[in-house]
Amino acid sequence: MQLNFKIIASLLGILLMINGAFMLLCLPVSLIYREGGVLPLVLSGSVSALIGFLLWLTNRKRENNNLGKRDGYLIVTLGWLGMSLVGTLPYLLSGSIPNFTNAFFETLSGFTTTGASILDDIESLPKGILFWRSLTQWMGGMGIIVLAVAILPLLGIGGMQLFVAEAPGLKPDKLQPRITATARRLWIIYVGLTLAEFVLLFVGGMTVFDALNHSLTTMATGGFSTKQDSIAHYDSAYLQYVIIVFMFLAGTNFTLTYFGFKGRFRKVWSNEEFRVYLIATLILGLVVSVGVYARTDYGVEQSFRDALFQVVSIITTTGFVSADYTLWGPALSVLFFMFMFTGASAGSTSGGVKFVRHILLIKNGILELKRQIHPAAIIPVRLNKKAVSPEITSNVLAFIMIYLTIYALSTFIMGLIGVDFVTALGSVATSLGNIGPGFGTVGPVNNFAHLPAASKWFLSFLMLLGRLELFTVLILITPYFWTKN
Amino acid sequence: MQLNFKIIASLLGILLMINGAFMLLCLPVSLIYREGGVLPLVLSGSVSALIGFLLWLTNRKRENNNLGKRDGYLIVTLGWLGMSLVGTLPYLLSGSIPNFTNAFFETLSGFTTTGASILDDIESLPKGILFWRSLTQWMGGMGIIVLAVAILPLLGIGGMQLFVAEAPGLKPDKLQPRITATARRLWIIYVGLTLAEFVLLFVGGMTVFDALNHSLTTMATGGFSTKQDSIAHYDSAYLQYVIIVFMFLAGTNFTLTYFGFKGRFRKVWSNEEFRVYLIATLILGLVVSVGVYARTDYGVEQSFRDALFQVVSIITTTGFVSADYTLWGPALSVLFFMFMFTGASAGSTSGGVKFVRHILLIKNGILELKRQIHPAAIIPVRLNKKAVSPEITSNVLAFIMIYLTIYALSTFIMGLIGVDFVTALGSVATSLGNIGPGFGTVGPVNNFAHLPAASKWFLSFLMLLGRLELFTVLILITPYFWTKN
Repeated sequence: MQLNFKIIASLLGILLMINGAFMLLCLPVSLIYREGGVLPLVLSGSVSALIGFLLWLTNRKRENNNLGKRDGYLIVTLGWLGMSLVGTLPYLLSGSIPNFTNAFFETLSGFTTTGASILDDIESLPKGILFWRSLTQWMGGMGIIVLAVAILPLLGIGGMQLFVAEAPGLKPDKLQPRITATARRLWIIYVGLTLAEFVLLFVGGMTVFDALNHSLTTMATGGFSTKQDSIAHYDSAYLQYVIIVFMFLAGTNFTLTYFGFKGRFRKVWSNEEFRVYLIATLILGLVVSVGVYARTDYGVEQSFRDALFQVVSIITTTGFVSADYTLWGPALSVLFFMFMFTGASAGSTSGGVKFVRHILLIKNGILELKRQIHPAAIIPVRLNKKAVSPEITSNVLAFIMIYLTIYALSTFIMGLIGVDFVTALGSVATSLGNIGPGFGTVGPVNNFAHLPAASKWFLSFLMLLGRLELFTVLILITPYFWTKN
Repeated sequence: MQLNFKIIASLLGILLMINGAFMLLCLPVSLIYREGGVLPLVLSGSVSALIGFLLWLTNRKRENNNLGKRDGYLIVTLGWLGMSLVGTLPYLLSGSIPNFTNAFFETLSGFTTTGASILDDIESLPKGILFWRSLTQWMGGMGIIVLAVAILPLLGIGGMQLFVAEAPGLKPDKLQPRITATARRLWIIYVGLTLAEFVLLFVGGMTVFDALNHSLTTMATGGFSTKQDSIAHYDSAYLQYVIIVFMFLAGTNFTLTYFGFKGRFRKVWSNEEFRVYLIATLILGLVVSVGVYARTDYGVEQSFRDALFQVVSIITTTGFVSADYTLWGPALSVLFFMFMFTGASAGSTSGGVKFVRHILLIKNGILELKRQIHPAAIIPVRLNKKAVSPEITSNVLAFIMIYLTIYALSTFIMGLIGVDFVTALGSVATSLGNIGPGFGTVGPVNNFAHLPAASKWFLSFLMLLGRLELFTVLILITPYFWTKN
């Protein structure tokens, strides 16, 4: 089947119109706080909407309305890229981030819900622009939900067809209505949880603006903060616990959250990934607590809170900072480095490898030992009490191996660009996993501004690659994609 | 089938007798150089031979002479452990390494052909003891050849059955004569190459003693040197090039070397792993040369030589040092860190993951992208123009994943023990890969003496694990091994 460029362009147009609408949504904020940004936002919004409208208009009439699998790959990648390119306009036009490289890095970091930032004085930006910054993450999160729950399973990416097996059955022929229905249901949860967190943060003493921004970026597991010190700015146990809970929820499979809201808790608990995610987070939180308590002069409660906050923040790939984990000694540094490769649940807004893949990986590894002893027996990996097909297992293993291969090569490339060893290790892990803070000179209390421009472009590419589950982007650079049959 | 403990004990006895014989083989060296070590060597050799003889004698008479697969796993692991335990005697009795932890670390580092050392003044040791030190590596290399070419394929470990497909067909019912015949043929090559290198090193100006020791440890891809400065001690281009060539040969599948000696070069060249190994080594050597030339004031020839030497040394997991690669800037540091995960060829004395597994991994990753586009097609990975069964591919992927998982967890454990981040990353990589030098405080010009005792035991475990291709050891700690049926 030929690529259907008309439908691709038309869908891109719709995305850019939505982009424009969200930019204009920042106008009220700018108007209320009168810190500037009004004209840039009006201009950016209009330009984005206009480009989108023209794209849609010129490709509206088409003979072929079928959306193929390969069109799907292109739309997803081009969509994220297009949004991020146009999304730089508010930064550039307002002069908040005058440099294009930096503006693109910040915008893609937003749309991919990474949260790595080049800003070194966040509070100096107009509130309207900061609101746009938070919105890019929230929109990115929305996009990911659709992507993870509806689109990627259809494309067969990285075993995603397996992980959302609990979602209503999806057949290609009912593509559009199903996506719309699934997405709508999950978006209600997404919006509902965002509002709930907003209220709880506001009650806890955050300003309306800060509460809104932080709830937007929590639910996206994005981690952009309106404070340079991130959550460490707030010396409030209540606020930090609220954010811990919502980061955890944002890292939970949204389909399960939907079941939870419907009161079907048995269904939630029967999900193996959720159980492991919950129990692992608690155990790791406790382990790190002990380490923090032993190495700092914090009390028991603060050790526990800081530890749990940072564990949840990194595992869910949010990236909020309540304390600098690189100061907690070598063992915990290694542990946090490893957390950068966990990710939370499939079907959530979190990035990275995700628990379900690790579960399959570990189970398959153990079974391989069993297969050594009993070579004649056919021993499939089981997930949620069902046998997983060898194709999906192989796909998941390939995903993880490609993830790690890209990780290793990218670290080398960062070294070539001239970034030191630890910073290279950390910045690549955090970009590919869509987390935010890294190690070395891009640690939790630093930012990415000082990195060479080439490395910023490269890390941007990694953010996109990680966000779109590798295959979606990689497939575009294989000959298989561009040759027929 | 019940474990056949009698045959296991009997074979262990034979190994310990061989161990004793090799210890006594060091006597002439001690007698010639008169630096001490005579009595310790006599005692050690006698004790080892005696224990071995008693083990053999008491288990000689047995009803059941069948060797099962599970017996194989036990023999291999216990053999390496037993040799290393008894192998500490010369160090302990001579007082060269009075501390048991250090002596065990050094001995296991020898028998696993790792080459990590706790010695900080090698030249001060009696030559007889140093010769024993080199011999542990050479014996370890001999053991590995049998293991890799004859035993592991039968045990079905880590896809090894595939990699030696070129070797004469091995059927379990003809186990013993086949192992003997294959081993004998490959040992002739091993001994022959060792002698050839000895002559070439001697001709190049090394003393008889140094030439002998370095050729023993080169062919084992071990890397123990009789000089504290390793090969950097020799300011001779000739000697370094000779060692480069023999390190490369030691990292080549010995079955292929056998074919090479028979003049069947087409057969050698048709082996995919060999082609990739050769070409990758050359390309990486050139890449590193450019980097070294750019960052140092060396001339072209020395840049090339130092670069190629270190590339070959690390890739083949030898670990000889002609220059400190950690001083060559961040990009090359990352690159050398990655080299610690390559390994050379299956069926050689090198350790680590090995090229053939990486080839399968990369091919499978690329094909997975193709499978995404054409989900209906069955697309097997091909190696040497033959389709590889999904079971073996899965086994190989599981091997690499387990390798990396163990790597990550071990780095964390090293951190817990109190070792800094970079040293933890480096020491685990070099131990698991049986290389020798690492990063941080265990870099090419350092040694392992200063590490905490707990970390030395842990790294020893990793050396054994890596040397025996993971599964052989891991399988012993699964319930599958110990339960019947």
